[in-house]
Amino acid sequence: MTPAANPLAHLRVVLCHTSHPGNIGAAARAMKTMGLNELVLVAPLAWPSSEAEARATGAVDLLYAARVVDTLDEALAGCVLAAGMSARQRDLSHPPLTPRQAAPRLLAEAATAPVALVFGNETSGLSNAELDRCQMLVHIPTNPDFRSLNLAAAVQVMTYELRTSLADALSQPADMPPYADLADVERFYAHLEQTLYAIDFLDPAQPKRLMPRLRRLFARTRIEPEELAVLRGILTAIQKNN
Amino acid sequence: MTPAANPLAHLRVVLCHTSHPGNIGAAARAMKTMGLNELVLVAPLAWPSSEAEARATGAVDLLYAARVVDTLDEALAGCVLAAGMSARQRDLSHPPLTPRQAAPRLLAEAATAPVALVFGNETSGLSNAELDRCQMLVHIPTNPDFRSLNLAAAVQVMTYELRTSLADALSQPADMPPYADLADVERFYAHLEQTLYAIDFLDPAQPKRLMPRLRRLFARTRIEPEELAVLRGILTAIQKNN
Repeated sequence: MTPAANPLAHLRVVLCHTSHPGNIGAAARAMKTMGLNELVLVAPLAWPSSEAEARATGAVDLLYAARVVDTLDEALAGCVLAAGMSARQRDLSHPPLTPRQAAPRLLAEAATAPVALVFGNETSGLSNAELDRCQMLVHIPTNPDFRSLNLAAAVQVMTYELRTSLADALSQPADMPPYADLADVERFYAHLEQTLYAIDFLDPAQPKRLMPRLRRLFARTRIEPEELAVLRGILTAIQKNN
Repeated sequence: MTPAANPLAHLRVVLCHTSHPGNIGAAARAMKTMGLNELVLVAPLAWPSSEAEARATGAVDLLYAARVVDTLDEALAGCVLAAGMSARQRDLSHPPLTPRQAAPRLLAEAATAPVALVFGNETSGLSNAELDRCQMLVHIPTNPDFRSLNLAAAVQVMTYELRTSLADALSQPADMPPYADLADVERFYAHLEQTLYAIDFLDPAQPKRLMPRLRRLFARTRIEPEELAVLRGILTAIQKNN
């Protein structure tokens, strides 16, 4: 299977601020059993780790190839879509999808460009700032009385769902429009925020949840490159006329 | 939910000849996250085990309640159906089902009587004698180049599939957020167009396809009423500062 025909090769697992290195090893093993191979670690607490190697068993190759970065933005470089995995409902967040609902769309996009699955810290999950970087929220349904899904188990479930949904996704027409690079979208958000300060709509002392709210709105729409150029042009015109 | 209405309460996980007690603990945790609670251990190598307790975290209650027996027959007492989990194809075995294929039947039977999910030893899997006790064979599809699914990870995938299939069967309606009234959305478009003229971004003599393009972008996002109020507020601030 060529990379273009195998969306699993375009699916990047990003583990943020992982506390227990054993979970990283187990996550690598989980990924490899389902045919994923790109692992990125954002500021892991302990790395490298013999415990990670022990839990990875036959997937140590994947561990050694893992990229270690300082920030989530670095981890998402080159991706067109980031799906944040969350165990709980958030205010102002995207309505969460189940893995089964999310998988076809993730696979369709991963057919042509890198897509990230973003997992938070074992105890605290993804921060609001980290979730703001994601355009999709995925929640694995659990027993409401015991939601304590292990990190590597969550990676296993999500990657299982993707592998299992692959046949269905491949049978769908792949006429997805090209989406803007996430780094360009971030530049748009920065420009937008700057402009809202300039017109006194946003108070730097009391920004409240305005930017997260606007991010959520645009995340739902999945901005295309030409649209991004139009929006940036409007912001520049506002500032020029201010 | 009464036990009769909750098939998950009738699903029994049977672990045969488990070598690593940590896997038993992790399996208990996996079960509990998906709402299963009946664990039976057939001749575990080491039991009880502090390692099992450590990996079970909040599911130690399930570990303490686990029944320990000498033979698979004892473990299956009272069950109407046993599904053997197998990582490999067997001669003379039942044609294996995927978890997704197996789940509806397992749930249907578990609606009225106990059903067992039978997992073999980490290294050797289920013996032929053990498989002979099973009326269904389930195989979790994996990367053909790396089939090494961890035992607790297999329990997690199978129990996730059962919980998810149950939810699909009950087909709960999704929570739809309230969308903005279309007349209000039209007033937003009018306000936006007026503002773009005011900041000289849009030329009334040559409007080109700008407004249709922006309409398309916002139509994809399905604006909510509060978001519409924020956007109208931004437009007003732009005009005031112009």
